[in-house]
Amino acid sequence: MPSTLSLGVLGGTGPEGKALAVRFGRAGCKVRIGSRSAERAREVASSLCTGSGLNSISGCDNREMIESSDLIFLTVPYQEAASALGLYRDAFKPGSILIDTVVPILFGKQGPSYVELEAGSASESLAALLPDGVQLVGAFKTIPTHLLEEDQVPLDCDAFVYGEGAEARGRVMEIMRMLPGLRPVDAGGIRAARTVERMTVLAISLNRRYKVRTARFRVVGLP
Amino acid sequence: MPSTLSLGVLGGTGPEGKALAVRFGRAGCKVRIGSRSAERAREVASSLCTGSGLNSISGCDNREMIESSDLIFLTVPYQEAASALGLYRDAFKPGSILIDTVVPILFGKQGPSYVELEAGSASESLAALLPDGVQLVGAFKTIPTHLLEEDQVPLDCDAFVYGEGAEARGRVMEIMRMLPGLRPVDAGGIRAARTVERMTVLAISLNRRYKVRTARFRVVGLP
Repeated sequence: MPSTLSLGVLGGTGPEGKALAVRFGRAGCKVRIGSRSAERAREVASSLCTGSGLNSISGCDNREMIESSDLIFLTVPYQEAASALGLYRDAFKPGSILIDTVVPILFGKQGPSYVELEAGSASESLAALLPDGVQLVGAFKTIPTHLLEEDQVPLDCDAFVYGEGAEARGRVMEIMRMLPGLRPVDAGGIRAARTVERMTVLAISLNRRYKVRTARFRVVGLP
Repeated sequence: MPSTLSLGVLGGTGPEGKALAVRFGRAGCKVRIGSRSAERAREVASSLCTGSGLNSISGCDNREMIESSDLIFLTVPYQEAASALGLYRDAFKPGSILIDTVVPILFGKQGPSYVELEAGSASESLAALLPDGVQLVGAFKTIPTHLLEEDQVPLDCDAFVYGEGAEARGRVMEIMRMLPGLRPVDAGGIRAARTVERMTVLAISLNRRYKVRTARFRVVGLP
């Protein structure tokens, strides 16, 4: 019963967080947007509800959102992700899942490039910051925010889902199947992050080379 | 006029080399298979011609093949690639292109894993071994050999093509378009190797998880 799960968005007032909130709102989920400022979160939630005709998106401060959510999307910029997790580490419910959508990317003169991290990937570095009993699942990394924002357009692509817990991956894949045109693909353990995060940079470089905005991936040959 | 180009295969007696020779033979190209033993190369070429009804595949030793080819597929196992290039470095014609299909991968108890290299990728380490005037273009890395071998089946996927020279990438993309169902995608400079080689490992891990043999990729959203 995914619609009875409470979804939260850490960084819910940014473009990707807002787009995910509306997409899952349309799919019938209740979504709580978090922000450092509860007032700002409530304003954004209210404006998203007005824009979409939904009444299932609400706002509160990040701590309250994390305390009351089963599945929490992490949609802050990479540079802020570690400090956000550090700040709210003690607020996570045991058994909750952090859905990491963060990609460490730099936009330079030569175009976008992947930030090579000592841990191997953003997911691996962030997973190490979570308390015991809270699992990180990587997802939505290769889905363009521009596309998520066109919230009535089917996503028409696959999304790679990875993380150490097969059951946690399964829970995330279950809610993802609620979004029209999105097929979750089980990419296995967290080391897949090293590939999937780089694929995002590849997609963005394809956007620039081919002058498009929503390059994304499908796997051919799956059952 | 791709069919007037001479194609060669370094490692042409292995499964991927043979499959590429037949695919490009069917597309109307002359293909020269190379091997350390000229006799072995001729035997394999003759058997491929018999099996496919073609007469455009011939065999010779690696040195002769390299000396007489404009585009040379490198299809040896990763462990042998550097020594093969070292051995024949002086045989390449100026202006010829090495089409690198090699993926550094280890098959362990936990499944396939990417071999992390100091140069960042196999392509980057191999490009450094080529003489001036010979360019490396990475291609076919994510196309499953099992699929290439079913030589009458359209490939139905995209192939990422990268390398430092845009003109060299263009030449490789031109011949790739001769293969039914294959769309070459220009992935830019050689650093894309770090992503694309890892995508091969991801595809192989998907094969195992989903019990299929030919998982591969398409990019959605290109013109």
